[in-house]
Amino acid sequence: MRIALGLEYDGSGFFGWQSQPCGNTVQDEIERAIACIAGRPLRVHCAGRTDAGVHALAQVVHFDAPAERPLAAWVRGVNSHLPAAVAVRWAQPVADDFDARRCAISRSYCYVLLAGPVRPGLDARRVGWYHRPLDVERMRAACAALAGEHDFSAFRSSECQARSPVRTLHEIRLSEHGPYLLFVLRANAFLHHMVRNIVGALVQVGRGARPVQWTAELLASHDRRLGAATFSPAGLYLARVEYAPQWKVPGGARLVLPVELAPQ
Amino acid sequence: MRIALGLEYDGSGFFGWQSQPCGNTVQDEIERAIACIAGRPLRVHCAGRTDAGVHALAQVVHFDAPAERPLAAWVRGVNSHLPAAVAVRWAQPVADDFDARRCAISRSYCYVLLAGPVRPGLDARRVGWYHRPLDVERMRAACAALAGEHDFSAFRSSECQARSPVRTLHEIRLSEHGPYLLFVLRANAFLHHMVRNIVGALVQVGRGARPVQWTAELLASHDRRLGAATFSPAGLYLARVEYAPQWKVPGGARLVLPVELAPQ
Repeated sequence: MRIALGLEYDGSGFFGWQSQPCGNTVQDEIERAIACIAGRPLRVHCAGRTDAGVHALAQVVHFDAPAERPLAAWVRGVNSHLPAAVAVRWAQPVADDFDARRCAISRSYCYVLLAGPVRPGLDARRVGWYHRPLDVERMRAACAALAGEHDFSAFRSSECQARSPVRTLHEIRLSEHGPYLLFVLRANAFLHHMVRNIVGALVQVGRGARPVQWTAELLASHDRRLGAATFSPAGLYLARVEYAPQWKVPGGARLVLPVELAPQ
Repeated sequence: MRIALGLEYDGSGFFGWQSQPCGNTVQDEIERAIACIAGRPLRVHCAGRTDAGVHALAQVVHFDAPAERPLAAWVRGVNSHLPAAVAVRWAQPVADDFDARRCAISRSYCYVLLAGPVRPGLDARRVGWYHRPLDVERMRAACAALAGEHDFSAFRSSECQARSPVRTLHEIRLSEHGPYLLFVLRANAFLHHMVRNIVGALVQVGRGARPVQWTAELLASHDRRLGAATFSPAGLYLARVEYAPQWKVPGGARLVLPVELAPQ
């Protein structure tokens, strides 16, 4: 029986999702915990391989359970074998041809950026930081050129293994929450480092070092070497994976964000 | 010259504020970092000694600087010597008779509690968790008995070193933010474990295991042994320290809280 799980994790202590010989990845932890419940080792497949330090609010994975278990065992049972920074949020039996990666229609990522002169302490592992003031209206205008289907080579890591650099960015928006900027990006899929490279470019526009039309020029160049530095993984969250309704995969992502309340 | 600093920290990796022979406390880190800028070791005094795992949004400390430095050196210079989880937010010269602890008029603490059947992953070090549904209206009603000047012996750790168990709780309120409950408590000062013991008692009322008037009965008993278990430090934040205006200490606490946004 194929089972889908929704996961959340604080990625700051892990070398990313993908299993590595040295261990300490989210995949290693989740496969180890599931094996405790399943009674034997098995492989887990995810919707989006997050990098070292990147978090997930709603990663989706699937695996083939060798034995039937109550759904609560795949949630609370697995959680009891996971480190505190990783949790299964839900479990759902799915059709045998469901695949967490191939069936995903879209992925949404959030990036949380603290803009201010002093670096964060409490949120150091949870937000990116830029020390100069940013012009959010300029950044919003610079976002517009990126929406739609494009060759995103200029925002792609040199280590990216995807066959094609063409992706459809359905949505890119920017909102302010006190001193935090929240970027939300939704695409059919993302290239390696794509969100962090887009955030890096938008910050250059926001601080006034580049004109608003720079993102359009960069996109047209297809040249990663012309772009800005890859921004920190600390502010990046895999926030939602969308599937066609036929798969009956819970879609309710928990999009949680640090928000500043008024001082007492 | 006496200097006051505002600090924030993620307490999850530290053995609390107070310096210990084994090290790894916030005080150890801040004294080490200030010594790098000041040029010699010195002692730092704080407004509220937080326990292991407890966070600060707005801790206030003071120290006597042996040499004059630009204020930026006490902020960005000290930050460059601190671990990522601790940051100085501001520095301010203060009168020689200013004392971060003795001059404080009130302290405010927040407690963030996730209520739901599945434990947190991303927020494991940042929120308390209770797995059963809680009746917030009952909890609010149970708060009322605690406001005002009382002998809080029933909510005091057996290790508390305060001379008197009498404290004035100026404010205690409870609000809901998606699946999170936010407790805000403001008092002239707090006893050891007082907030975590109050939250523990309110959870017993909220889950229906105790009547609404239990907090009043517990308070009147002066007996800690009758109370609930001390709640986890993970959800506790020192959120503000208030001083008389004459001291000219910045009062703008950053009260930051994880908030659930609507799914995309």
